Amino acid sequence: MERLARFGVSLPESLLEEFDSRIESAGYKNRSDALRNLIRDYIAESVWEKGTESVYGTVTITYDHHSHDTAQELTALQHDFGHIIICSTHVHVDHDHCFEVVLLRGSSEDVKRFVEGISGIKYVHSTKPVFTVLV
Amino acid sequence: MERLARFGVSLPESLLEEFDSRIESAGYKNRSDALRNLIRDYIAESVWEKGTESVYGTVTITYDHHSHDTAQELTALQHDFGHIIICSTHVHVDHDHCFEVVLLRGSSEDVKRFVEGISGIKYVHSTKPVFTVLV
Amino acid sequence: MERLARFGVSLPESLLEEFDSRIESAGYKNRSDALRNLIRDYIAESVWEKGTESVYGTVTITYDHHSHDTAQELTALQHDFGHIIICSTHVHVDHDHCFEVVLLRGSSEDVKRFVEGISGIKYVHSTKPVFTVLV
Amino acid sequence: MERLARFGVSLPESLLEEFDSRIESAGYKNRSDALRNLIRDYIAESVWEKGTESVYGTVTITYDHHSHDTAQELTALQHDFGHIIICSTHVHVDHDHCFEVVLLRGSSEDVKRFVEGISGIKYVHSTKPVFTVLV
Repeated sequence: MERLARFGVSLPESLLEEFDSRIESAGYKNRSDALRNLIRDYIAESVWEKGTESVYGTVTITYDHHSHDTAQELTALQHDFGHIIICSTHVHVDHDHCFEVVLLRGSSEDVKRFVEGISGIKYVHSTKPVFTVLV
Repeated sequence: MERLARFGVSLPESLLEEFDSRIESAGYKNRSDALRNLIRDYIAESVWEKGTESVYGTVTITYDHHSHDTAQELTALQHDFGHIIICSTHVHVDHDHCFEVVLLRGSSEDVKRFVEGISGIKYVHSTKPVFTVLV
Repeated sequence: MERLARFGVSLPESLLEEFDSRIESAGYKNRSDALRNLIRDYIAESVWEKGTESVYGTVTITYDHHSHDTAQELTALQHDFGHIIICSTHVHVDHDHCFEVVLLRGSSEDVKRFVEGISGIKYVHSTKPVFTVLV
Repeated sequence: MERLARFGVSLPESLLEEFDSRIESAGYKNRSDALRNLIRDYIAESVWEKGTESVYGTVTITYDHHSHDTAQELTALQHDFGHIIICSTHVHVDHDHCFEVVLLRGSSEDVKRFVEGISGIKYVHSTKPVFTVLV
């Protein structure tokens, strides 16, 4: 279990009231929980922009598996990036469509190159990657 | 296999040249592939904002499994949202940390309520959801 | 001057160290300043999503003033939205191009309808609106 | 006036139908106008990530002008970045608050450094910069 550090913050009173009402309706149980989430997002964003440090990320893709050699090309690409891919989960949505999530651990530069690789495969759509850090 | 429709587009010449050079370095093999991806993103964004139509989405979460009842609460929450959760994939990152992706199919309103539920669980960090559509 | 409120936060030690190092390199002088900014962004995002409360926002547009009736249509549109437009600043970039920022105060619903209005004007490009709140 | 180039695109029929219905409700008059906007966003994003090419951008800030030396520090900072700042527009919102937009032309690296400078000034909130390109 993580050791906790405690510190004080000062904010304009009206800003704090507004924050309290927003985080309550967003489901947070207290300020520390909400701030921890905002801070993790901030750090992940900063790690992502730097490009060289390691992030945990996911890339969500959808495609029509009847299309040409889509499935094979996707598999080949994932093998090329084997060093950053942890695993992928595949859902057979209907007769035609696939929905797949690839879980990655690597630098944002490598993740971006992987996404560029997907861009070269016909009939595949991928979302922007999301990423997080484990601090 | 999807039937294809063909149509003409007119763009300022300089914009088209710039576009061609960018998509080539991003890995796209031709303009139609690049435009298909931009259009899918645009539609997914619009569906997401509307709130009532169905999207395919993923929520990426990380947490420390030693923390209190985190894992049980997460499982309970996922059961409450069973109607929109297809499956989830779990990675045991190291002695302490978990990295998990939940695959969902549902309205963006439901997905947002699921994310709010996660916000109420101590020691869990979740990214913003990503989403796509199957057209 | 705003009255300040002070409160305590507890965070995992390693997360706090990471946060401190990031905000220092981002120019922040202390944690309260950085958290105030993160919190304002969070509130503005939440106000924006709700749609009915008032935000301060800007929409950045670029266009070719030689194009048809672009300038006139833009002016007419801005008059239609006079109740939410504070002012606009115009830069004559070069012989052909204009760069303009519109400052707005209104609900995000109104701001979105204004942006839709811009979308209907030929040869005008507009960015997504940015917005902030005054707490 | 810009010379126009014309080219053909092929898309899955169902995707095109969906796109047509979305862009109509977003105010676009035809596909070319909508695609031009999507393509400009895509190029601006790519220029921004590269860091070295020139973008047109805006940074929106709000602050309490009673706070310490906020206004002077902001002015001093803007003079330091005089080579990328075209102008700024200032709104006296109420007795306490200022709402200001800075129009910039420069590399995204310089714009980021300017935003970092703002981060160091107490009681000032700035949004993420938005940016566009003039192609």
